[in-house]
Amino acid sequence: MSAYEELLAYERQTQALAQVMGRLGWDQETMMPRGAAEQRAEEMGALEGVLHARRTDPRLGGWLETAQADDAPARAILRRSRRDYQRNTKVPARLAEEIARVTSAAQGHWAEARARDDVALFLPWLERVLALKREEAAALAAGGDLYDALLDDYEPGATAAGIGAMFGRMRPRLVALREAVLAAPDQPAPLKGEFHREGQLRLARLLAETYGYDFTRGRMDLAVHPFSSGSGADVRITTRVVETDPFNCLYSTLHEVGHAAYEQAVNAAFALTPLGQGASMGVHESQSRIYENQLGRSAAFTGWLFEKMRSEFGDLGLGDAAHFHATVNRVSPGFIRTEADEVQYNLHIMLRFDLERALIAGDLLPRDLEGAWNDRFKADFGVAVERPALGVLQDVHWSVGLFGYFPTYTLGNVYAGCLMQALRRDRLALDEELAAGDLAGATTWLREKVQVHGALMEPAQTIEQACGFAPHEGPLLDYLDEKFSAIYGL
Amino acid sequence: MSAYEELLAYERQTQALAQVMGRLGWDQETMMPRGAAEQRAEEMGALEGVLHARRTDPRLGGWLETAQADDAPARAILRRSRRDYQRNTKVPARLAEEIARVTSAAQGHWAEARARDDVALFLPWLERVLALKREEAAALAAGGDLYDALLDDYEPGATAAGIGAMFGRMRPRLVALREAVLAAPDQPAPLKGEFHREGQLRLARLLAETYGYDFTRGRMDLAVHPFSSGSGADVRITTRVVETDPFNCLYSTLHEVGHAAYEQAVNAAFALTPLGQGASMGVHESQSRIYENQLGRSAAFTGWLFEKMRSEFGDLGLGDAAHFHATVNRVSPGFIRTEADEVQYNLHIMLRFDLERALIAGDLLPRDLEGAWNDRFKADFGVAVERPALGVLQDVHWSVGLFGYFPTYTLGNVYAGCLMQALRRDRLALDEELAAGDLAGATTWLREKVQVHGALMEPAQTIEQACGFAPHEGPLLDYLDEKFSAIYGL
Repeated sequence: MSAYEELLAYERQTQALAQVMGRLGWDQETMMPRGAAEQRAEEMGALEGVLHARRTDPRLGGWLETAQADDAPARAILRRSRRDYQRNTKVPARLAEEIARVTSAAQGHWAEARARDDVALFLPWLERVLALKREEAAALAAGGDLYDALLDDYEPGATAAGIGAMFGRMRPRLVALREAVLAAPDQPAPLKGEFHREGQLRLARLLAETYGYDFTRGRMDLAVHPFSSGSGADVRITTRVVETDPFNCLYSTLHEVGHAAYEQAVNAAFALTPLGQGASMGVHESQSRIYENQLGRSAAFTGWLFEKMRSEFGDLGLGDAAHFHATVNRVSPGFIRTEADEVQYNLHIMLRFDLERALIAGDLLPRDLEGAWNDRFKADFGVAVERPALGVLQDVHWSVGLFGYFPTYTLGNVYAGCLMQALRRDRLALDEELAAGDLAGATTWLREKVQVHGALMEPAQTIEQACGFAPHEGPLLDYLDEKFSAIYGL
Repeated sequence: MSAYEELLAYERQTQALAQVMGRLGWDQETMMPRGAAEQRAEEMGALEGVLHARRTDPRLGGWLETAQADDAPARAILRRSRRDYQRNTKVPARLAEEIARVTSAAQGHWAEARARDDVALFLPWLERVLALKREEAAALAAGGDLYDALLDDYEPGATAAGIGAMFGRMRPRLVALREAVLAAPDQPAPLKGEFHREGQLRLARLLAETYGYDFTRGRMDLAVHPFSSGSGADVRITTRVVETDPFNCLYSTLHEVGHAAYEQAVNAAFALTPLGQGASMGVHESQSRIYENQLGRSAAFTGWLFEKMRSEFGDLGLGDAAHFHATVNRVSPGFIRTEADEVQYNLHIMLRFDLERALIAGDLLPRDLEGAWNDRFKADFGVAVERPALGVLQDVHWSVGLFGYFPTYTLGNVYAGCLMQALRRDRLALDEELAAGDLAGATTWLREKVQVHGALMEPAQTIEQACGFAPHEGPLLDYLDEKFSAIYGL
């Protein structure tokens, strides 16, 4: 076997074991009996040890030195493998283990601090996690920017400077739009009532099928926090049911279907290689967001959904389809990122990006984080944070060491804006199709332009070749202005 | 760390990974989308490769040479680890891989041969599997008995000679009992009707809870072939529903609860060590059989079950509790081992034991197997096998290389007979408890006498210390004679 073939056979097994790890995570959130948590931690720890040993195996370095690529996929496999191997071997095993151990404990302390609304309980753990992540970033950056080194794990090729500049352009327009929307005299009515569980799950399944999710290579279960899991031939989604809020179930389903459809659509020839999954967190989020928002919350599609919901639940007390569309897209003040609408969501992200960038740079100390959060929130959202559980303690990310992850959510929205503009350009009858509940045209376009390529190209290149232009924030901002001006009569 | 501590830490991770492998098997049979089969095979193959490498790692040999044990559990851990390591390193990697590959294919060909009732389709695969297993046995036996070398993997300490002698004593008594029962003038009525799925599953869950299965460390799902899976804090069972035959669901549930309760009850200090599971296949089967048969099909307990079934399904058309007990234990002629009653089951096993022992010894050739099967079946069961799917092709075992496994089913029944005799001796009010649906006394006795010890002792010793006498076939045969003489008025 050539060095390339040896590398590929080895990577295939590593990827297969990574899929097993993902399945354990799925099982933990959906099926695992509650008494099994400790044993499961040992099982996952043992498998993580196997994966880490494989990813830093010196044989990999040898193969990567001499391997030759004959075509574009092989070149991409070598490029991804080299980058992963370099990242994995730059971080000392001692540090990787300590990060795993400390973040595992810190997550529990964060959950307790949030439940008790007490930042002081979390502060020493945040300090420990941050110190370790800065050490990791220094090992990875080799003299370069610390934040970029962390960001690179989630969004290869992106830089804090580039994202920071883009966010700087977006922020004033979003703050202005938010203020205008909330000041509009006619506010949409909220949805009221109880919506039975069976009906919600029936509609969620209908939505998943309508959007082309392949149930022969996946399944849908319930979980506290919806997620998608797996690649290739086994990509599972979860949803949840809140009886007073069916949109929670339906739109979280569409979101996870976006992630899952991406994984299901990747070229089967890439399965169990470094190309056999989404190109980055940002590109992944672009698929979940365009399924959920640009398509799922469009006036055309909500017209179809309005009829389906009325068949399932009877009259919704909202008037006509236009009122229903306004209700689906209703903007209301709130503190929580995960509950935010399309207008406010990215402001939540920008706040976190700026703060975590300052933390990693050492310009902001953990003890000053709460104050900085509250000041910034007041500036962008116009209200004071009532208590830390609604502010600095609301997200799990920092407790588990996910610094550099937050901006990929907004990158995903920006990419989704670009893709929607290109899709509308290429598919003039899109609104008619959506109004008929026919998603095939849109999802086929996304599959062929984006999803099938998996991680063959770099993230920004993936979006650029799909759209025919380099990704930028303009299309998203124009889309938001236009959509919410129409709904709120601005 | 001492050599013993290093060994233990290493074994712990291996056992944790083996649990992961078990969970993948569970998922495959209960949850996996049907399109994921090929990818799953790769995932399990990769994990199997990791496990095999760990189990033959030369470091294990080094630790085992120098490790010192300070107490009985440590001595047992070293004994088990040494035996496993020796077994695993005696079989060349090339041979182990070929067995895995050939049996995987052979299982498919067996299934097709059975479906088409065509022995010739399976014969070349049986020849290949048998040749490989004989080669494996020769590597393991190092000059000793080939069959013993295979048997040792399932029932350490047992020998073909010992089992053969015991089966020789049992066979005439069982043949005679079978003939007498089937010739009796009054035969119990079969159960007739349709029994709704929800009711069957509700009763199955009630039975599992009544027998002390811990749902906080397990769960129950549906599968085509019921099984139990996992050890320690995560032990899952499955059942199935046949609407015309509720006993299938209820008694397969009790059977799997017996296996699962054993795994749940093992001393928590043994978790993720070589002692943290059942002592052998035979001892395991003793627990599933005593839960299912000696306890579950007793006159006392079926009295309680009769009332529960009537509350769930209405009048069963069987008369009183005595008639119900007779119906539950009804003996009818049949070709299939897995559908056999307590009287005939062991005759099915003895047939297989004698044939597979002759195959492994080279005294019987695969091409003569069908004829030998049919002759023996006629001799013991008095009827001619109608077609191979009801005869030599009915079981999956040989296609996947499970030679030496069959006798552990009857060993389990023999052990269950001994345990029941001892339990009745120690617990005089047992029938009153069973009649009230109170299993706590019986299951506590089994837990404390057998289950808690896991694999601390050798199989026969596990039974002997529980019963206070060395296991032998007498109690089982006496129990069967007494029970079926009463039911059939012999």
